[in-house]
Amino acid sequence: MNEYTYEEIEMGQKESFSVTVTDEMMKSFLDITGDINPLHNDREYAISKGHPDRVVYGMLTGSMLSTLAGVYLPGKRSLIQEVKLKFAKPVYVGDTLTVEGVVEEKHDAYSLIILKVTMRNQNGDKVCRARMQISVI
Amino acid sequence: MNEYTYEEIEMGQKESFSVTVTDEMMKSFLDITGDINPLHNDREYAISKGHPDRVVYGMLTGSMLSTLAGVYLPGKRSLIQEVKLKFAKPVYVGDTLTVEGVVEEKHDAYSLIILKVTMRNQNGDKVCRARMQISVI
Repeated sequence: MNEYTYEEIEMGQKESFSVTVTDEMMKSFLDITGDINPLHNDREYAISKGHPDRVVYGMLTGSMLSTLAGVYLPGKRSLIQEVKLKFAKPVYVGDTLTVEGVVEEKHDAYSLIILKVTMRNQNGDKVCRARMQISVI
Repeated sequence: MNEYTYEEIEMGQKESFSVTVTDEMMKSFLDITGDINPLHNDREYAISKGHPDRVVYGMLTGSMLSTLAGVYLPGKRSLIQEVKLKFAKPVYVGDTLTVEGVVEEKHDAYSLIILKVTMRNQNGDKVCRARMQISVI
């Protein structure tokens, strides 16, 4: 876990990590949310909607923003204030996502940073874009 | 699970549900994300930062948007396109959140709805506000 202070963080600073979405993650997300929607839980239904397999919950993909901020950038001193997420392409179980954040703004008066985030799958397709407003406490 | 079609959904339509954040949910979220940040995992550290207990992951609170869209409004036909989240107050383990979504816009050309979402804790405090853009497929 990184422990960057606000002062140590530079404009344009980048951090990234990769994660493979597993069936266990899907089960854990179902346990947390109770979201029984068949697009995420029923392969046949997902196929009937034009997908090759069950679609990963968008907010499960989004939960990787927690890791990006809380472990990587800024790491320990992170307190997420706002998140804006756009889902560009579906994610499927087994996909490996690379999550990258870049420091786009720094607001000294509030020790606040804005991260621009992109998530790509193993084919390089952008599956998710996000912006996060994070206090560095 | 509701199964509203786009045509059946009305402007101003509301759906809500309540959920209590448990320690098991925190563990499951840690399993999914690997976010070991001490604010969410170390009671003493959270207290040193001025909290009464460990702070619930913001994106765990945010994951309840998956349930709101995928189970309640619109339910089965939900496909989340965009999410905007603002965390107004900290959530603690044991808090009971009431998640309410209201249909604020309908876009016939795209079968798209905009939900305005508020989450309140057991004291009536607004802990999170969100806007979701959802395709009704």
